[in-house]
Amino acid sequence: MATIVFCTANKMAQTTTRQCLIAHLKRFGNARETHLLFSSTHSPSVTLLPGTRWFSRATGVRFMSHGNAGRSAAGRIRRGALALSGAAAVTAAAAVAGFLANANHFQCADMAKRVPPDAEEKEQERDILERCRGFMSPPVTDIGVLQGRREEMLTKMEMLIMETQADFCRALQEVDGGVFKVDRWERKEGGGGISCVMQDGKVFEKAGVNVSVVFGNLTEGAAKQMRSRGKVLKGKDGKLPFCAMGVSSVIHPKNPHIPTVHFNYRYFEIEEEDGTKQWWFGGGTDLTPVYINKEDAFHFHNTLKEACDKHHPQYYPNFKKWCDRYFYIGHRGETRGIGGIFFDDLDSPTQEEAFNFVKSCARTVVPCYLPIVYKHLNDSVTDDEKAWQQVRRGRYVEFNLVYDRGVKFGLATPGSRIESILMSLPLTARWEYMHEPAKGTLEAEMLEVLRNPKEWV
Amino acid sequence: MATIVFCTANKMAQTTTRQCLIAHLKRFGNARETHLLFSSTHSPSVTLLPGTRWFSRATGVRFMSHGNAGRSAAGRIRRGALALSGAAAVTAAAAVAGFLANANHFQCADMAKRVPPDAEEKEQERDILERCRGFMSPPVTDIGVLQGRREEMLTKMEMLIMETQADFCRALQEVDGGVFKVDRWERKEGGGGISCVMQDGKVFEKAGVNVSVVFGNLTEGAAKQMRSRGKVLKGKDGKLPFCAMGVSSVIHPKNPHIPTVHFNYRYFEIEEEDGTKQWWFGGGTDLTPVYINKEDAFHFHNTLKEACDKHHPQYYPNFKKWCDRYFYIGHRGETRGIGGIFFDDLDSPTQEEAFNFVKSCARTVVPCYLPIVYKHLNDSVTDDEKAWQQVRRGRYVEFNLVYDRGVKFGLATPGSRIESILMSLPLTARWEYMHEPAKGTLEAEMLEVLRNPKEWV
Repeated sequence: MATIVFCTANKMAQTTTRQCLIAHLKRFGNARETHLLFSSTHSPSVTLLPGTRWFSRATGVRFMSHGNAGRSAAGRIRRGALALSGAAAVTAAAAVAGFLANANHFQCADMAKRVPPDAEEKEQERDILERCRGFMSPPVTDIGVLQGRREEMLTKMEMLIMETQADFCRALQEVDGGVFKVDRWERKEGGGGISCVMQDGKVFEKAGVNVSVVFGNLTEGAAKQMRSRGKVLKGKDGKLPFCAMGVSSVIHPKNPHIPTVHFNYRYFEIEEEDGTKQWWFGGGTDLTPVYINKEDAFHFHNTLKEACDKHHPQYYPNFKKWCDRYFYIGHRGETRGIGGIFFDDLDSPTQEEAFNFVKSCARTVVPCYLPIVYKHLNDSVTDDEKAWQQVRRGRYVEFNLVYDRGVKFGLATPGSRIESILMSLPLTARWEYMHEPAKGTLEAEMLEVLRNPKEWV
Repeated sequence: MATIVFCTANKMAQTTTRQCLIAHLKRFGNARETHLLFSSTHSPSVTLLPGTRWFSRATGVRFMSHGNAGRSAAGRIRRGALALSGAAAVTAAAAVAGFLANANHFQCADMAKRVPPDAEEKEQERDILERCRGFMSPPVTDIGVLQGRREEMLTKMEMLIMETQADFCRALQEVDGGVFKVDRWERKEGGGGISCVMQDGKVFEKAGVNVSVVFGNLTEGAAKQMRSRGKVLKGKDGKLPFCAMGVSSVIHPKNPHIPTVHFNYRYFEIEEEDGTKQWWFGGGTDLTPVYINKEDAFHFHNTLKEACDKHHPQYYPNFKKWCDRYFYIGHRGETRGIGGIFFDDLDSPTQEEAFNFVKSCARTVVPCYLPIVYKHLNDSVTDDEKAWQQVRRGRYVEFNLVYDRGVKFGLATPGSRIESILMSLPLTARWEYMHEPAKGTLEAEMLEVLRNPKEWV
């Protein structure tokens, strides 16, 4: 049985993420509360997660930590496996890509290194391999290929979505204590993805963080459908080579006082008949609370606004409105949640600037959401609150199955990985006939906001 | 406050339904088991339900039993209300149609008289009013209007769907012991409906039986969409007067050994520019078990086959295949259940013969399903069986929200009554990531059948 080691070290990244979170919590709540939150939920053994183990039962291929990895939170690190490091590990990793693509069940026992935000500027110069070490799994594209075209947007974006997945998964694992199940999957027609799912955890009922990188040929009709502006694209013999990639996530917590969050950041490239490349970005982050908490809503929207404002003063107001319009359950006359931002077809002012905006958005995911999770971690819950949460989960299912363009496109596309598309559905949901909260209740207050979207900042 | 009495007497109907059920159970199981089922679940006070009370809190209009109605199962019959009988009651009932149409919450304390199957031939001659007395609520169309056009198909079909609703609701109430909540609703654009829902009962998690009779003008595009063959219809100035009516039902029992059932029987009429009327029938009954029971599957399909065979030898085989094709969850590669029959666009050999076929189908609903309910009423249940039921419920939601033509059409149509459309959704459902039953289990056996539909008769 081949055993291959993929080196990891994550002390610095852990520390950076915590500092970032503490800074946000300080602004959000008061410092003492912040301190208590951390001291009560982070024991040293959880905080200083020492390495990463990728383990495939199906193929016998292992990606296992070494170096300072003497123990793990789950106590599952094994020593003595065949260890390769640095470039050798990557080459070996690339060599087993065929195995990996067919390996269904990977488990990531704990988390790994990533780019600290304050080193952002130096990112381009850093080794692709070094950055890959922090991912939940090797990227979809062969690392050698990524290194060979490091200046291209396809590489920059794949690195960003892999990092976003790893950052968010790590932050969620820290608060939950559970471990993400990591599935690599391959798309027969080209490309594949990495789905990370944690189900029935301590804090999260269902948490899914998905990366996909797919390519192939589109028909002109399908290409038109992919772009919300419906721009007509001309292909060679009606076919258009394309690449689509993105990171998407839906987190359904158990406690009804912790809202559900969703985000998705994506990039498309399509090559026309004459060789010109059409490209655009899309994405957004939005919140779906079960009960209104104005402070949470302000924090969430304001964090997004600050990220947007760095790039264009109209981004937040425009994309906030777009979000309210998009996440709308037409037959109920309700928005799905309290919104956030949503955009599509972003191809200006330049590719680099559009990417930098998307990067800023992707990096707000943790500071947007995690402070809210920590704040309500120990909120008490009544049966009525759970019942209302279940009804709202039903509405979430209605939106995702009836309206969501991504879900509809995915379900209708042969070769899609259905489990990755439908991981956005909650673990449990409820449909009560003629459910209508009584006037003056907190449930009615929530509905009122969903029927008449508000400005939160 | 106006109080109007709508006379009812239902001893004969109760007796007839029981005899019909016993005959089916005798063929289905053994006679002793049948006897025990009835003696254990039917106390005299439940069997001899004496009358019907329709009570609207919203409008103060009451439809209340008199005559032999001295007590009811729920003990809620009140004497001494202003009582009108026969034609006077109908006239009064018709006079308050405006009020009724706006009254949302009716409650039917117990059930009423209906046409005994052996009197079928005399049906045409019987008084519309007398037949209306057995309904869950006065019909959607004014009783005076129905009496005035008693020979027309619109009247015959509305009477059939109202009777089918009442028969089925009565049979379900008898086995559950619960009471249907009866909502009348009005469609602003024309027509309305009667929704009967029982939620969280003793036997049924959610049971919905809905009648709707809607009319108005269709655009040519919408008319084309309504007909599955997509026949082009020409209207006056692009508008086509239409009437659509039907009865539809979904029953989700609590016990995972009792399958979910769905049926729908409908009729359309569209008037073209030159005054010719296009009409057609559609419908079907299908079963969605959580576990395979071959005896149940045979009984269900065979009962349908016998009803079909009376009309055409190709009806059952053709409509069985159509059912498997229609109730197909494309993205899962599974049928929703084990099928039954499904047909649309039926406009041959004559209107009368097509109606007689639909009537035969509608009248098999109770004998198809109730014997299966009684048979598994006391089956023991494990936690694993409940969990698998919840996963199957999730698939049911997926079919209904993603594929069902009726639901999609309804959700996209302004003015639809959403609660009546979505009452088909189960009370609870579950989505587990990557759920796949182990080989050799009963759950895997169920999936195998859904992936490869079988012939049961």
